[in-house]
Amino acid sequence: MNLFKKVLQGDHRALAKAISMIENGDAETENLLRDAYFHTGHAMRIGITGPPGTGKSTLLAKTALEYRKKGLSIGILAFDPSSPITGGAFLGDRLRMAELASDPKIFIRSMASRGGHGGLTKTASQAVKLLDASGKDIILIETVGTGQADVEISKIADIVIVVLIPDLGDEVQMSKAGLMEIGDVFAVNKSDLPHADRLVVDIRNAVKEKNNWKPPVIKTIATKAAGVPELARAIEDYRKHSLDNGRRHVVLQARASHEILQEMHGALDDLLQDNAETGAEFKKAAQDVLKRKTDPYTAARNLLALMLKGGYKR
Amino acid sequence: MNLFKKVLQGDHRALAKAISMIENGDAETENLLRDAYFHTGHAMRIGITGPPGTGKSTLLAKTALEYRKKGLSIGILAFDPSSPITGGAFLGDRLRMAELASDPKIFIRSMASRGGHGGLTKTASQAVKLLDASGKDIILIETVGTGQADVEISKIADIVIVVLIPDLGDEVQMSKAGLMEIGDVFAVNKSDLPHADRLVVDIRNAVKEKNNWKPPVIKTIATKAAGVPELARAIEDYRKHSLDNGRRHVVLQARASHEILQEMHGALDDLLQDNAETGAEFKKAAQDVLKRKTDPYTAARNLLALMLKGGYKR
Repeated sequence: MNLFKKVLQGDHRALAKAISMIENGDAETENLLRDAYFHTGHAMRIGITGPPGTGKSTLLAKTALEYRKKGLSIGILAFDPSSPITGGAFLGDRLRMAELASDPKIFIRSMASRGGHGGLTKTASQAVKLLDASGKDIILIETVGTGQADVEISKIADIVIVVLIPDLGDEVQMSKAGLMEIGDVFAVNKSDLPHADRLVVDIRNAVKEKNNWKPPVIKTIATKAAGVPELARAIEDYRKHSLDNGRRHVVLQARASHEILQEMHGALDDLLQDNAETGAEFKKAAQDVLKRKTDPYTAARNLLALMLKGGYKR
Repeated sequence: MNLFKKVLQGDHRALAKAISMIENGDAETENLLRDAYFHTGHAMRIGITGPPGTGKSTLLAKTALEYRKKGLSIGILAFDPSSPITGGAFLGDRLRMAELASDPKIFIRSMASRGGHGGLTKTASQAVKLLDASGKDIILIETVGTGQADVEISKIADIVIVVLIPDLGDEVQMSKAGLMEIGDVFAVNKSDLPHADRLVVDIRNAVKEKNNWKPPVIKTIATKAAGVPELARAIEDYRKHSLDNGRRHVVLQARASHEILQEMHGALDDLLQDNAETGAEFKKAAQDVLKRKTDPYTAARNLLALMLKGGYKR
């Protein structure tokens, strides 16, 4: 039986192999994803993000166990802040999730996002598709909430949970600004620490209502699983809300457009990178820019115009 | 006198205004950058990166003062971990740099990177061009070293300084993997803390020689400016090394190609985003993907093929 069929049947070893192919940029990946796409649309994709040290992984683990109690199957993707150059990933999160690893209905994978344009979005959205096609009910995606990745996760997930803790350092607080805008639900984790209530109030004041949804703030203590049922209920509330008010359809439309755009960029990258080595037009343009005979903006517009006229040689 | 001429003359108010135009994605930006490009190539671009809390800003400030002692003019760009959605920036780093702000030969700017493909690279490389064209000798670019931004800074800067401190937390240590690969010089800041020597040894063991350059590790205490002259010397050593062995030319060639590619992506984004609203081809493709009549990979390849044949309507 081929890999694709095994993935469809929910075979974890096949899933692991297929995801490795994504990570390695294997040439066969696109065929696999193309086939898998027609079997997607079932899973609920939950993004969990927040600064380092907030206990995201533990909260994710407890949330997964909560869903298991309801009989649902789970896929977990953890994106570690690892090298975008080598593509290597660390074992830290996997170890923290040891209590889940023995459950045959839970698939866990640490992933490294590949570099380049929207690296996280691309790698994650590909892996999510495979998990979805394999029949997982819930897909939990963990990312570190700093900068660009914040926005990227909101393009992949159906709902974004932002995890914060009381009394983070100054620079970390700064990075919360982006997080404030992408959170559909907030978890104040380690809420037995001092100043937890102040953080709850701060978040409530900072977040704005979007599409008739005011993001709720849930107090959790992940190590004790405290607040986790409340978190799951908030996620379910959001899901119902977004189905009811038509928001879900808008999100899915945007995601379809975004995926085509992203793949076009990928295809363009392939085309241009080949061309940068061998193509006369691109090579000439790069030399002219280097010698300041022209500027990169003019060069780019000229090359794209040539492309649209069908005169760009591959 | 127009804005461009004032920028060329090193007028700080004009520079500030021009950089705001970049941040706001002003339509006039491209003309300005196109003109400025022909006046670039003079400045040395120094990237300073590292995890939050390592004292990067302070070290950058002291390094700037070191260069001022040599009579050089300085431009400073600080990219805060701020909202990629609103584009807002924080004042934290600016306050920390108060001691520099009164020097008329130092231009300081906090910037927010714009979202989208390679947001930091694009915003930063545009602002750097203006500073370069305005006659600054040294351009210092501060970024927070987590994930993707690490690689991006290495595309803009001539040299990348990675700042680390002893005894960072577990998750932060993880994120160092990417940093290990992009650092040309390492600073172990707060080197009066325990275990500083161990970190120096760890870094020396972790970094590899690239192009006959073994990245040196310099111990600094930024608050006291300790180690800053040594850091400046290491930067100068690297500059000479990269000129001597031809590495500099390779980097500049790669940068020219990269900038054209980046601008082509930007131009393609503009084209496609217009098209996503109004263009029949793209709209149809997005609907088909949403209904699972086709998949995003096939749709993207078909649209690009259409484009290369000159059949894609704007």
